[in-house]
Amino acid sequence: MDIAVCIELDREERQRLIRGVGDCPVTFSQAAEPCSAAIVFGNPAPDVVAANSSLRWLQLESVGFGEYAGLRWSRSGHSVQVTNLAGFFADPVAETALAGILSLGRGIDRLVALRERRDWVGDPVRGSLRLLCGSHVVLFGRGTINSRLAELLKPFHCRITTFGRDWTSDALDRALSTADVIVATVPHTPETIGLFDADRLSRLKPGAVFCNLGRGSLVDEGALANALAHEHLGGAVIDVTRDEPLPGGHVFWTAPNLILTQHSGGGSGDEIDRKIDHFLENLARFRRGTPLVGLVDFRRGY
Amino acid sequence: MDIAVCIELDREERQRLIRGVGDCPVTFSQAAEPCSAAIVFGNPAPDVVAANSSLRWLQLESVGFGEYAGLRWSRSGHSVQVTNLAGFFADPVAETALAGILSLGRGIDRLVALRERRDWVGDPVRGSLRLLCGSHVVLFGRGTINSRLAELLKPFHCRITTFGRDWTSDALDRALSTADVIVATVPHTPETIGLFDADRLSRLKPGAVFCNLGRGSLVDEGALANALAHEHLGGAVIDVTRDEPLPGGHVFWTAPNLILTQHSGGGSGDEIDRKIDHFLENLARFRRGTPLVGLVDFRRGY
Repeated sequence: MDIAVCIELDREERQRLIRGVGDCPVTFSQAAEPCSAAIVFGNPAPDVVAANSSLRWLQLESVGFGEYAGLRWSRSGHSVQVTNLAGFFADPVAETALAGILSLGRGIDRLVALRERRDWVGDPVRGSLRLLCGSHVVLFGRGTINSRLAELLKPFHCRITTFGRDWTSDALDRALSTADVIVATVPHTPETIGLFDADRLSRLKPGAVFCNLGRGSLVDEGALANALAHEHLGGAVIDVTRDEPLPGGHVFWTAPNLILTQHSGGGSGDEIDRKIDHFLENLARFRRGTPLVGLVDFRRGY
Repeated sequence: MDIAVCIELDREERQRLIRGVGDCPVTFSQAAEPCSAAIVFGNPAPDVVAANSSLRWLQLESVGFGEYAGLRWSRSGHSVQVTNLAGFFADPVAETALAGILSLGRGIDRLVALRERRDWVGDPVRGSLRLLCGSHVVLFGRGTINSRLAELLKPFHCRITTFGRDWTSDALDRALSTADVIVATVPHTPETIGLFDADRLSRLKPGAVFCNLGRGSLVDEGALANALAHEHLGGAVIDVTRDEPLPGGHVFWTAPNLILTQHSGGGSGDEIDRKIDHFLENLARFRRGTPLVGLVDFRRGY
């Protein structure tokens, strides 16, 4: 069966992948290029996926599946399996979340900016610093990222309230009203779009830190910037935005106490190698006919 | 017995302290002002301490004792007790240390600088990011800060090597050669001055992150900046420097991948209140004649 790869790989990485797949023919293409391979590795443009009538298995290089949610997955004579990288980014994203939360608490973002201006403030910085220890943390999303983050938070003796798929608006709002830190890692689904709008943000505890490492569509970005500008919120850690790259005039470039991690949360030096390993392991399963790791549930949408 | 206070306090804090001490007369003074009180709370200038022949108890508002190390503590008829705030800063400094280490690993410092320039880099950031999980961490100093940090590091499954007062040069160098992260929290003593000089820094593992949250005298600052500039080291978290405020032309203002926390590591919003509480609790002990908390051992020097 032929394999099309639309991940950006350097020469060495391509060689490693070719050696790994054995006797399958491999082609490397761009995400927007038409493609008729039975196996596709990467995130091709949705219309390329829709037009590929030979497609049997699509291994995404992301967790997010939102852009493909509207497609049909039945082909004449067979259906398509789609796998994502659920769980793959738990360690790095949880570390980025904690890095951002601690940075806001301990003033690292302000201290970095002070150094850029060669400005020594010293003692007066101290009174504005906060401790994470003993805080109330709301984890919105019960997936692998927040599970890992809950582990990392254990020695901080935080009170942790976690919401999974069974969340209700009432229970969430009640928890949000006392939370010092909120970490959202939920996928893009009809229920999560715009969930953190001006009204909900206004109900957060004054001084709270809001973190979004799931999908940008969760948040009304103007309302969040507003809550930061009026110091209703103490800070924000934003890995994902509605538009990426962030447009030039966007409010997130200038909102105070906002750490923008530019969708790098899942990154690490060995990320590409690990993705190739993951694909090759799933390919072995595909050939043996055993269940693939990370199968997307089309009804659930992730 | 009369009390002199040379900590900067606002009106409310002064009132709280006066209420707490009961019928002792309290005066508020500057660190450099002559003072003849039996009890002093704060960090007066060393010559003021030397000239105070009535001094019985000095409660410092720091852990560091180095500037007073050369003084004589016997008075005609009595000797002086000095207490420091050992243990008081463990939580905040450990959180600042972890904030700095995670920030360097997850690129928070670079991402903050990118936002200042409104520069979206996105995906290419990812390959430069590192995970703390599974690293080898050397904790140099076995006091309360590194003990707390060791707790915070537990869920990261790091290999941790700790050195206390029994450290030897050989064992330290052996550990440093494989350490991904080094965190020094040792006091200013004859043994620690200049211990991390160009030679020792050159033996650290390439890419290592060096953190100093003890005393600035531990490090040859020019050599450290050099090791960063030549990318022998991956980063540094520096809370303490030889001169504070850091002089205008100092290499730490521009050294790459250096997070300068301006001796704010021990800070938190409730710091002054907690210091007043600590002093009042020790004052009750002093009056009862029970041992004071945080007594400095003059021979050991901390």
